[in-house]
Amino acid sequence: MEFWDKKNECMTRENIRQLQFEKLQATLHRVYKNVRHYRKIFREVDFMPEDMGSFSDFKRLPLINRQDLSENYPYDMFAVPLREVVRLHTASIHFEDPIVIGFTRNDLDQWAELMARNFTGIGVSSDDVVQIAMNFGITTGPFGVQVGAEKIGASVIPISSGKLPAQLKIMRDFRTTVLVSTPTLAVSLVRQMEEMNLDPRSLSLKYGVFGCEPWSETMRTEIESRMHIIATDTYGMTELFGPGVAWECPEKNGLHIAEDHFIPEIIDPVTLESLPPGQEGELVLTSISKEAFPLIRFRTGDISKIDYGPCACGRTHCRISRIFKRSDDVMVVRGMSIRPQQIAQVLSRVSGGEPVFQVVVERQDGLDQLTVLLEISNLNFFDQMKKQRQFVEQLHRELSELVGWEVVVRLVEPGTFDPARKVQDTRRFQ
Amino acid sequence: MEFWDKKNECMTRENIRQLQFEKLQATLHRVYKNVRHYRKIFREVDFMPEDMGSFSDFKRLPLINRQDLSENYPYDMFAVPLREVVRLHTASIHFEDPIVIGFTRNDLDQWAELMARNFTGIGVSSDDVVQIAMNFGITTGPFGVQVGAEKIGASVIPISSGKLPAQLKIMRDFRTTVLVSTPTLAVSLVRQMEEMNLDPRSLSLKYGVFGCEPWSETMRTEIESRMHIIATDTYGMTELFGPGVAWECPEKNGLHIAEDHFIPEIIDPVTLESLPPGQEGELVLTSISKEAFPLIRFRTGDISKIDYGPCACGRTHCRISRIFKRSDDVMVVRGMSIRPQQIAQVLSRVSGGEPVFQVVVERQDGLDQLTVLLEISNLNFFDQMKKQRQFVEQLHRELSELVGWEVVVRLVEPGTFDPARKVQDTRRFQ
Repeated sequence: MEFWDKKNECMTRENIRQLQFEKLQATLHRVYKNVRHYRKIFREVDFMPEDMGSFSDFKRLPLINRQDLSENYPYDMFAVPLREVVRLHTASIHFEDPIVIGFTRNDLDQWAELMARNFTGIGVSSDDVVQIAMNFGITTGPFGVQVGAEKIGASVIPISSGKLPAQLKIMRDFRTTVLVSTPTLAVSLVRQMEEMNLDPRSLSLKYGVFGCEPWSETMRTEIESRMHIIATDTYGMTELFGPGVAWECPEKNGLHIAEDHFIPEIIDPVTLESLPPGQEGELVLTSISKEAFPLIRFRTGDISKIDYGPCACGRTHCRISRIFKRSDDVMVVRGMSIRPQQIAQVLSRVSGGEPVFQVVVERQDGLDQLTVLLEISNLNFFDQMKKQRQFVEQLHRELSELVGWEVVVRLVEPGTFDPARKVQDTRRFQ
Repeated sequence: MEFWDKKNECMTRENIRQLQFEKLQATLHRVYKNVRHYRKIFREVDFMPEDMGSFSDFKRLPLINRQDLSENYPYDMFAVPLREVVRLHTASIHFEDPIVIGFTRNDLDQWAELMARNFTGIGVSSDDVVQIAMNFGITTGPFGVQVGAEKIGASVIPISSGKLPAQLKIMRDFRTTVLVSTPTLAVSLVRQMEEMNLDPRSLSLKYGVFGCEPWSETMRTEIESRMHIIATDTYGMTELFGPGVAWECPEKNGLHIAEDHFIPEIIDPVTLESLPPGQEGELVLTSISKEAFPLIRFRTGDISKIDYGPCACGRTHCRISRIFKRSDDVMVVRGMSIRPQQIAQVLSRVSGGEPVFQVVVERQDGLDQLTVLLEISNLNFFDQMKKQRQFVEQLHRELSELVGWEVVVRLVEPGTFDPARKVQDTRRFQ
């Protein structure tokens, strides 16, 4: 078992608590001083940073969510001047509620540290060749993978999510040993290999680091056995860093959260009460190292539970269970977060009214599919079949453009689905 | 006038020559020891690295070109073990002759230095917000821009070449001050602004750093006046680093080559004789700092001339004239290098024979267009119009996929064009 940063990854519980407390105090002082939003909400509960004597004081602080971040778009949640920010990312620019996240140079270094722990922890070293098959751009994911892999001295191929044959050509010619992508892409690659009669065992692949979307043990087993690799999960979100916040060690028994950088909590998403370890609820994270964009009690929207029990790998950081559910209506499909409201916006713009619809999410042969069911109404009933077909085609085109792949659009009779249920996610993750 | 690295940017000619000579000696020893290809071609001219007593000895060394690099694909031109390589890029994976380029950590640092000089030299500082509207992926361009801008402490938005409205939303909301893209994209953005009635003067834009394709003074004037920015050119190629090898200072009178990292020469592309300063010919570059992938007397294929005269900016590094011509048949269109052979491959695969064709490159409203003219022959003459249309549609689809945008395909009568002339480039760059 290799460690990138054994000292910090294997601290005693007592030392973790002590370090968290000190970094938290410093962070609270900093955000109170520099971020108007925190100053406002802290004052509302009559909290001054110097009041914090224990973690129970901390739990008096209000929770924040993505809505708070987007209300402060673009730069009002930044805790440093823009001059000190060297990188800007966003979760998505398509959202009607955009969020922009800033990183100082030091933040980027910390992020590289987190991903270096992840890579080293699963056995990747400077001898490895890492193929990053994720779209580089305005979201953070692939950049974190890149700096982390470079930090440990691996050879990084930032290929982006190009076409499958190109991915496989690079994989074979460059002798890639580590694939980093969504699990969905891994399944597509395996299929493409089989189509091309390319035996995965003739490649140099050893590891797969997957994330950005929910995936199951069944899917892991399938990828591992068909691709002949070890596949592990990594977790994170643009608002915090991106990948590397929590990750699976080779025990594959929950994802270790870097507790020297984040304080995790689990709450009941309805009552907002704190829940004890082992109980399932919404994951709340506080970042205690970030300079540009610290988040205090941030509701991730992800449903999980925390395990403080010992792990055979020797790491003392607690583990969260893999994420399969959300507390809100965000669908994570092919690595992308999509909200029913975004679909609704397109539907109402095209049809000029309030459409009744349901989004069906399915996994077919390991690949996520989206179908939008739209009730037939006077908004989309046309005397001419041709007009109706053009209407559906326009919806198909605009929705496919929104998500970036082919969405199926179907007009259905009223009563086909429960109109109150905007999303029907039929994927089985367990 | 600001300098990032005044000491090295303003060395005396004598010190430049001395430094170049020392770094060249070290490089020649290293490649002779580590790269079989160099050992072989040096021996063919009976050259031992310790023989080099002066620059005239250096000129005895054979020239190398892209063909040499691709014959050593993937890793045989590397001068360090793969373990020391932290980044792999390629000029293009579509090429039938692929080339892979490696960078050590130190190479990436040097690259950041080069781009930091470029940004600082034109007036960009840590107060600026830099929007990188270039496709991040397997080619190097945007990564070099990113590390350079981060090095000077600017805030970097790695947006990639996303859709125009998204680019403009980010540009306005994030208060972008520097746009980095191809000049073609800048023209498209200006047009999109005008369509959206977005006054460029309401934005925070100050500078445009453009490259990756030939552009003219007319185009510069148009971009500067319509976008209300200062626009400068930057030059480089994946085989060397990417952007930052040479760039325009605010004098806009040729591009300074970083002579402490590269030795430039001009040769006659036919006789391969060295040409004196001021005379136009093919630019040959030798990299004297690169660890992973040093190039000795590399034929860039770009036609230029060198000016050693003083520059009002105070930099002593020589300047090359802007690149409008190539010595080979590579077309640089919308920032992408395309060779007629690639087109020919698609044509012969689809038609099943040796087609007679010509590629017409035009610039319409500042945007490059490609039209492929194909002579009607028994290969593509069908009795049914429908079949012929399907044939042309398939060509259209496959060629558009090859280059990444819509290519026009036209069947024409024999005699319409000179079949010996594969490319007709009607763009006017001067």
